[in-house]
Amino acid sequence: MFSFKVLKKKNQARAGEIQTPHGIIKTPVFMPVATQSTIKALTFGQLETCSPQIILSNTYHLHLRPGEALIHQAGGLHKWTNYHKPFLTDSGGFQVFSQSRLGKCKINDNGAEFIDNIDGKKYFISPEDSITIQNKLGADIIMAFDHCPDGGANYEATKEAMRRTHLWAERCVSTHQNSTIKPSHQALFPIVQGGIFKDLREESAKFITSLDAPGFAIGGVSVGESRDDIDEIVKFTAPLLPEDKPRYLMGIGTKEDIVKAIEAGIDMFDCVMPTRIARHGAFFDANGDKQLIKSARYQNDFNPLVEGCRCYTCQNHSKAYVRHLFRVHESVAGSLLSMHNLTYLIDLTDKIRDEILQ
Amino acid sequence: MFSFKVLKKKNQARAGEIQTPHGIIKTPVFMPVATQSTIKALTFGQLETCSPQIILSNTYHLHLRPGEALIHQAGGLHKWTNYHKPFLTDSGGFQVFSQSRLGKCKINDNGAEFIDNIDGKKYFISPEDSITIQNKLGADIIMAFDHCPDGGANYEATKEAMRRTHLWAERCVSTHQNSTIKPSHQALFPIVQGGIFKDLREESAKFITSLDAPGFAIGGVSVGESRDDIDEIVKFTAPLLPEDKPRYLMGIGTKEDIVKAIEAGIDMFDCVMPTRIARHGAFFDANGDKQLIKSARYQNDFNPLVEGCRCYTCQNHSKAYVRHLFRVHESVAGSLLSMHNLTYLIDLTDKIRDEILQ
Repeated sequence: MFSFKVLKKKNQARAGEIQTPHGIIKTPVFMPVATQSTIKALTFGQLETCSPQIILSNTYHLHLRPGEALIHQAGGLHKWTNYHKPFLTDSGGFQVFSQSRLGKCKINDNGAEFIDNIDGKKYFISPEDSITIQNKLGADIIMAFDHCPDGGANYEATKEAMRRTHLWAERCVSTHQNSTIKPSHQALFPIVQGGIFKDLREESAKFITSLDAPGFAIGGVSVGESRDDIDEIVKFTAPLLPEDKPRYLMGIGTKEDIVKAIEAGIDMFDCVMPTRIARHGAFFDANGDKQLIKSARYQNDFNPLVEGCRCYTCQNHSKAYVRHLFRVHESVAGSLLSMHNLTYLIDLTDKIRDEILQ
Repeated sequence: MFSFKVLKKKNQARAGEIQTPHGIIKTPVFMPVATQSTIKALTFGQLETCSPQIILSNTYHLHLRPGEALIHQAGGLHKWTNYHKPFLTDSGGFQVFSQSRLGKCKINDNGAEFIDNIDGKKYFISPEDSITIQNKLGADIIMAFDHCPDGGANYEATKEAMRRTHLWAERCVSTHQNSTIKPSHQALFPIVQGGIFKDLREESAKFITSLDAPGFAIGGVSVGESRDDIDEIVKFTAPLLPEDKPRYLMGIGTKEDIVKAIEAGIDMFDCVMPTRIARHGAFFDANGDKQLIKSARYQNDFNPLVEGCRCYTCQNHSKAYVRHLFRVHESVAGSLLSMHNLTYLIDLTDKIRDEILQ
């Protein structure tokens, strides 16, 4: 089964529940990113201490290594990882964006040609390929293959990417509907594009939400545009999506952005930032601001990262100890800071949900 | 309290119990190594899944970073790490050996001068310094500062290192007895040297065991000599140590070596090998032989590393999954293989203990 209901609203903000084949997700929700089918630097046992509800994996990376055939042979992502909470896979669309920026990706209406950073091989992925790969990976929620333009792209380029995104979205929905290999109740979310241009966002929302889909995403946000543009576009676009379907704002993960987006009516978030900055020694303080653990002021600070934080790290270790581990290049420092940062964002959305419900 | 009793013997092999201020250690025991006050790639939460009884930290590394003053200020290693099982610290003596090999260490009867690999600074450690540092670190068991010659050293050089080891051992015992900063019941173990020469081992054992100490170690084993020499020397030296005190064979960690050493009457072992090879992708199979996870034959092997193994990794993941993580350079692969390898050696000594007791 896949379904969604809004339990309560506070202005535009919503507290809801997504029913998936692997359990209920209480929204708003932050989804940790497990690019290569693991959260970086964390085992699933460690991830569980953060109480995530759903995690995200990357289709492009798994297609390259180990290949979707192997994961399909294992019985899909849940059996492959032995992690039985809901999974979401992105479509590879974001890699079109990030590789385009580097001049490494050729795009036409058929699909996108990538160059593997590691072995230099060329890969071609069409919208149909992306869906078939995601069918085989077997996540609970999968995403349409989209063309995400750079945040600084001009109107014409943004409009062209939107046109292609719509063309591809239709083909993705059709491929998914006709798939004989997809797990039952696998949900496909198409993605609204349109950059920083409101008329394009409106046109895209209108087209994308006309497709038969159980949820919708806003893509092309936080890809180079200004902070004011991000806020403005999210605020403008979120209400254009149906009230009775989950709304996913892709790739957003700072406290400030999440709080504003929830106020705009967004239900789902993901971002690699909290674990990436953790591995580089940064942690969220009580206000959600980034602090650097290597700072000399923590040298003999025997308090936890954040007083009262429930995370494994704060319950067990001091800033002075984690600082030492980071300074002597122990990977455990990154693991400890990752658990803290993920717990921080997971608790942030939980707390906002409680506020909406009360 | 610190005490030891032999519960049962089977030929020379012993099953015993060491009482320490942080709990009882059932022997024979394998001690995981936490060089920088963490097991590499594992949190203490993960280490606990391996059921260790005691862990080892390195005085030399902690003296350099973060410095024993900070750990003392935190309340000693147990509070510093929030790990409340017994700790053992080595003395820095092994670093005399490994840096000597590189021509980076000057030794005379006063002590040893090291060069820090990281910042190039010179450090001087005397036997008295080593004990004072270890008093401040506050482990349950600490080691005398010794001069460990290379396994290939000639008779004269080995004898000279033994003479110095004896001189230093007396000074260590005296410093420890007069220490006003040591935790109560902190046990100091002096170390027998003598290389591959039986007359020197005999002389060393005689001198070292004449010192007033609650346990004794055999050092200078597996430092370049042949496998036959290792076996011969351990078999020769172990029975020269008192029956009623724990016997610690330093730096030994392969299945074969452990099994033989227990048969010779050894009670305690440590080695970095199981976690070091784990981070390089090797794991112990059911026979204790090393296998490489990257091997193509594990590509679609959905079985655990070892069928029936109780470790976190084998209980949760397949060879195919761990292989994928290792191939895409996820540090989690090293964490998973480390848990398996430590569990393997911990269970190995437990099993041998059970056999002795029955």
